[in-house]
Amino acid sequence: MWLATGSDGHGAHLIPVAYVWDGSTLTTATFRRSRTVSNLRARPQARLAIGDTADVVMIDTRAILLNVPDIDVASAEAYAKVSTDPRNAPDLFLYIRLVPERILAWNSLAEFGGRTLMLESSWLDSPVD
Amino acid sequence: MWLATGSDGHGAHLIPVAYVWDGSTLTTATFRRSRTVSNLRARPQARLAIGDTADVVMIDTRAILLNVPDIDVASAEAYAKVSTDPRNAPDLFLYIRLVPERILAWNSLAEFGGRTLMLESSWLDSPVD
Repeated sequence: MWLATGSDGHGAHLIPVAYVWDGSTLTTATFRRSRTVSNLRARPQARLAIGDTADVVMIDTRAILLNVPDIDVASAEAYAKVSTDPRNAPDLFLYIRLVPERILAWNSLAEFGGRTLMLESSWLDSPVD
Repeated sequence: MWLATGSDGHGAHLIPVAYVWDGSTLTTATFRRSRTVSNLRARPQARLAIGDTADVVMIDTRAILLNVPDIDVASAEAYAKVSTDPRNAPDLFLYIRLVPERILAWNSLAEFGGRTLMLESSWLDSPVD
């Protein structure tokens, strides 16, 4: 997925990262000493995209930083299957737990109507624009 | 491509957009009344990604907003072939000219060494980290 973060005075940062989805949150990881982590410490919000630019899932999230020893085993095991395992270098990495607040999905302008599937962390029975 | 922008007080925004590349700059367009445009008015910098998360070109750019009548014909014609043509609704759209300042390309951690191909708007003869 693509992970966009920002903090005052620095504009936007954007990185590609592996992730796992457990049905309600996303988990990823990156370097402790990175722009992404310093942005999230200052502003724990991230906007992320999954898919490609012609078939997009866009998610506004609240971000929680987790030291490597604090991750649950299920998430750590799942993440290790899709990326470098942060548990092998706990001083270098942090996990990031991303809690969706707003989810949009669309493929083209033709799907701009009804592209919002979650608002205020609640799935909508009927999508809105 | 994925276009990330940010401004103080608002964090990062991220959108998918079509684009054309003329060998030295990228041209895209979006709605005049959009978070992307208000961010770029406040901070004319954008970080953009092309490709997918396993094969990335990441570009830090300076952004120039162009009203529809101010775009050159060649860029407008090229852009019309890949997206909705802003010239059909000049009150709704703005073109965005993106001037690369720093370009990185890599596929995995194995290519993190030597991933920087352009710095300070100059192509490097030998890539650096």
